[in-house]
Amino acid sequence: MYRSHTCGELRLHHVGTAVTLAGWVQTVRKFGSITFVDLRDRYGITQLLFGEQLNAQLDESPLGREFVIQISGTVTERSNKNLNIPTGDIEITVDSFKILNKSAVPPFTIQDDTDGGDDLRMKYRYLDLRRNAVKKNIELRYAVNRATRDYLHKQGFMDIETPFLIKSTPEGARDFVVPSRMNEGQFYALPQSPQTFKQLLMVSGYDRYYQVVKCFRDEDLRADRQPEFTQIDCEMAFVEQEDILNMFEGLIKFIFKAVKDIDYTEPVERMTWEDAMWNYGIDKPDIRFGMKVANLKFPSTIFLAKQDAAQASPLGAGGESGASGFAVFDNAETVVAIAVPGAAEYTRKQIDELTDWVKRPQIGMQGLVNIRYNADGSLKSSVDKFFSPEQLKAIAEYTDAKPGDLVLILAGAEERTRKAISDLRLELGERLGFRKKDEFKLLWVLDFPLFEYDAEENRWVARHHPFTSPKPSQIEEMINNNPVIENAADYLKHPYANIKANAYDMVLNGNEIGGGSIRIFQRELQEKMFAALGMSEEEAQHKFGFLLGAFEYGAPPHGGIAYGFDRLCAILGGSESIRDFIAFPKNNSGRDVMLDAPSSIDEKQLEELNIRLAVKVK
Amino acid sequence: MYRSHTCGELRLHHVGTAVTLAGWVQTVRKFGSITFVDLRDRYGITQLLFGEQLNAQLDESPLGREFVIQISGTVTERSNKNLNIPTGDIEITVDSFKILNKSAVPPFTIQDDTDGGDDLRMKYRYLDLRRNAVKKNIELRYAVNRATRDYLHKQGFMDIETPFLIKSTPEGARDFVVPSRMNEGQFYALPQSPQTFKQLLMVSGYDRYYQVVKCFRDEDLRADRQPEFTQIDCEMAFVEQEDILNMFEGLIKFIFKAVKDIDYTEPVERMTWEDAMWNYGIDKPDIRFGMKVANLKFPSTIFLAKQDAAQASPLGAGGESGASGFAVFDNAETVVAIAVPGAAEYTRKQIDELTDWVKRPQIGMQGLVNIRYNADGSLKSSVDKFFSPEQLKAIAEYTDAKPGDLVLILAGAEERTRKAISDLRLELGERLGFRKKDEFKLLWVLDFPLFEYDAEENRWVARHHPFTSPKPSQIEEMINNNPVIENAADYLKHPYANIKANAYDMVLNGNEIGGGSIRIFQRELQEKMFAALGMSEEEAQHKFGFLLGAFEYGAPPHGGIAYGFDRLCAILGGSESIRDFIAFPKNNSGRDVMLDAPSSIDEKQLEELNIRLAVKVK
Repeated sequence: MYRSHTCGELRLHHVGTAVTLAGWVQTVRKFGSITFVDLRDRYGITQLLFGEQLNAQLDESPLGREFVIQISGTVTERSNKNLNIPTGDIEITVDSFKILNKSAVPPFTIQDDTDGGDDLRMKYRYLDLRRNAVKKNIELRYAVNRATRDYLHKQGFMDIETPFLIKSTPEGARDFVVPSRMNEGQFYALPQSPQTFKQLLMVSGYDRYYQVVKCFRDEDLRADRQPEFTQIDCEMAFVEQEDILNMFEGLIKFIFKAVKDIDYTEPVERMTWEDAMWNYGIDKPDIRFGMKVANLKFPSTIFLAKQDAAQASPLGAGGESGASGFAVFDNAETVVAIAVPGAAEYTRKQIDELTDWVKRPQIGMQGLVNIRYNADGSLKSSVDKFFSPEQLKAIAEYTDAKPGDLVLILAGAEERTRKAISDLRLELGERLGFRKKDEFKLLWVLDFPLFEYDAEENRWVARHHPFTSPKPSQIEEMINNNPVIENAADYLKHPYANIKANAYDMVLNGNEIGGGSIRIFQRELQEKMFAALGMSEEEAQHKFGFLLGAFEYGAPPHGGIAYGFDRLCAILGGSESIRDFIAFPKNNSGRDVMLDAPSSIDEKQLEELNIRLAVKVK
Repeated sequence: MYRSHTCGELRLHHVGTAVTLAGWVQTVRKFGSITFVDLRDRYGITQLLFGEQLNAQLDESPLGREFVIQISGTVTERSNKNLNIPTGDIEITVDSFKILNKSAVPPFTIQDDTDGGDDLRMKYRYLDLRRNAVKKNIELRYAVNRATRDYLHKQGFMDIETPFLIKSTPEGARDFVVPSRMNEGQFYALPQSPQTFKQLLMVSGYDRYYQVVKCFRDEDLRADRQPEFTQIDCEMAFVEQEDILNMFEGLIKFIFKAVKDIDYTEPVERMTWEDAMWNYGIDKPDIRFGMKVANLKFPSTIFLAKQDAAQASPLGAGGESGASGFAVFDNAETVVAIAVPGAAEYTRKQIDELTDWVKRPQIGMQGLVNIRYNADGSLKSSVDKFFSPEQLKAIAEYTDAKPGDLVLILAGAEERTRKAISDLRLELGERLGFRKKDEFKLLWVLDFPLFEYDAEENRWVARHHPFTSPKPSQIEEMINNNPVIENAADYLKHPYANIKANAYDMVLNGNEIGGGSIRIFQRELQEKMFAALGMSEEEAQHKFGFLLGAFEYGAPPHGGIAYGFDRLCAILGGSESIRDFIAFPKNNSGRDVMLDAPSSIDEKQLEELNIRLAVKVK
């Protein structure tokens, strides 16, 4: 037996007990003839006292940082208590000790405020994982995993494993492929998600399915993406959208309670995609704070429900005609604004800095128009010469600005400008302290567009995926219209641009944490959908013949959702980076620098797989 | 809302309730103007009664097998109760119904005794999964999964996900590899197990780890193997073998209770590998019955602990010299026997059939010697002319035969003969009804050999894996002896042949369900082990440098175990085939015939991956 207790469990009531502990040497401090050692394990830190009689042995076998030792001794009360740790009332008077394994000096300190840089910590990830800051994340991840399973189990969901070696059906992201040795010249693909399998399980009658499952996408990596990632993947049969929303806001509330002890009792807010884009400029708004977007001008074709609102714009009727006399606004597709509370007194320098901020390539705006709505009610603007004080006041009030606020206006092409006003809103929300780390605010965004325009291929792609059902009232519109886009510039006028889907995203503090849809479950409609995406009948049959086949044998209505598990953990843990919540993450080139993977493989392996490298010699 | 209740929950106390159900049409029976329909879902079957007033609608929209329908009606008491199903007391008098989806006629019947062959059921796996016989298996699998997690969670284990895109380190089985697009000419490998990662987690201080995790091996498939399979993978730090055995027999007992309601209270039997091979001829004996092997002759080098026993063999001193006068025995390396209870009266024909059975190529014996120990105490043998009645009696008694038993003797080369006597024992145990399906008998097999001889490469390979530690008392023997095998024929005389490992297997009813070991945790010993396996320092560094590095920074003593989850489920479910317990299995060529995977991929995909096919044109 290596230990009788862990380093986190001994308390005052253990005083007098003979114990054996094992763990890592965190610190060694010598005071005269006495040596204090902090011994660390997964459960905590316990102070050890090595008395004079052990000095000779300590001289012979000195203890260094991160040595693994085993000690036997007696629990004693500390004279100098440490109130910061749960074991701080006691220490162990050591009778004997043994070095189980030595340690070289670690390349960085095993402490919360480590001196190790990112690269070093990735290379020695097994040491980085010892740090309390990282351990907390891994523990939180397990707690979320456990809570997820507990809730779904209670709700009658079954974890059913789906295969990892499947068929390559590139649509959207790139597949990772796996050459098959036994089937010459053929390849498996790793799943981007178990989407079709969970739908088949619904066809099979397993009406509540879940998995916490690895998925794979061979995409160019951004800071917050990993080639392999984990999904909480769920599907239900005989449900409508309402059933799914209720079930899964229950899941997240259960996780909040289990992991963060947060009672999230209020119902989760709901918002249509149109409202999200209209009021926040983005489909995943952070609703912890206001500063809603004012729509001064916008293309009439995409916000069908907002035609009336447009009439009220102070930029002239409908905000559409070039009636303001200010060319920047008149020539822009979109003019949007936000009112920044209490910012009317920003200095010229502060405003210049914001202007530079929106001009950065990531944001890509030409400039930033401002209107100071001063505390005394007067208005001052960077475009004073184009607008009368009354007009400025009308604009300010249209943005809901109060005296003392600063109105910021962006103008440009619809997509970029709307994204920019959202970014600006989030940036200012951050600066003004509106995005509190300990506040969690959920939101359902509903009624997403069914299609998205792919400019490169001048065709429609599925916004969610090709298995998402259109709103029942728009099925005819989808079926009866030709998907071909005659005029690329006018794609927004194509009827498909306004077909909405039975699709929903769950948003937490401005991050999409999950998304799903009610699926198509009729073969004919699924075939129409494939056709709408430009797939030939032959191609559809080759790629998804099994699913089309399954729909012929009594497929029930069904729908589901998938949560990005890594991101959910990161947000709950108060971090921006999913990497901090993955035990062995890859870097931005998709490399595991600890393993040094990927790597070259033997000629023999290649031969067996019937493939050759086609890499140009550099 | 698609349904108010499931098809499995309505009982007598619901009579009078208005309900809405949805599910699949199992059967349609028409009696005059009344139609009975059995409606099926995951939870059960409920009888529906369509009265006369629905006849017109039924004529217009006739219901077929596997149609998905939704009905509303009232729960009524059945006049003709069906005691075989939980809902058999009631039926639903249908008010209205709606066909949610039609079904073509299924290619086989959705019943326990389906008329579908294997191939058809694999192709339409989504229909096969509807059958109750398959559903029971999938549910059992989930129950085992859930129980596993519950037990390990309570014991303080954490589920920590390890990566799937790792480094190819072929040693033992072949890796599946994944070409990397972002790292030209390089490949990831899919893990054969998370072995090195779980060891790194121990180095990191996460002292109780588990995963229920997919693993991959690109091996030629046998009936009961899948290229992707699931493991219950566990590791603990600061433990000795005894700690692991106790923890994990606890796990299996917990699963027995949770899944089969079996109280397995007795301690799990333990047996050394030597005893298992000696008494049963195999390292995973089925100990539900006796019929132990009698060792009449064996090579002296491998059963070190049995040298004394050999003196007692009735085939002359030590059973080693060619002293019996019967050339078949004298020339054989190994002579082993079993006594078959009550089989002395087997007919000549029955014995001939057994002789043919051992001569089959899978068994590969030259013949079968028998001694009838008749009920009257007389003896009759197929080798009467070589042995006196006293000698025959001595042999019979040496096998523990009683009057009325039949002694069966096999002679030949050690490995094949021992395997054959084990196969014969299992076959006869099966025929005699000793292998009861509802009896579960666990066994720990301990002290496995550390090395195994690889005749093809004339070198030692790790029997478990290269991270398994030798018995502490034999470390010197390993380090101080040269691994090179001078004389291949005499490999059994090499000191390595007798080095035992801190390795253990858990056996259930003659199946290995799990195996593990106490690991090496010192860099130096790990390097010696790699060298013993014929790995150069450079190769060891290239493949396992990260692990050797980790061992320098305070690696704790640790060990673990992995269970074959698919097999465990199959045995608990009383089946021979793991395929029955996998939702979407692959066939013996590694193909998913439902998906038609693997398949060819686009030239564009190959190009992006920088690989070319090297398949010969057929």
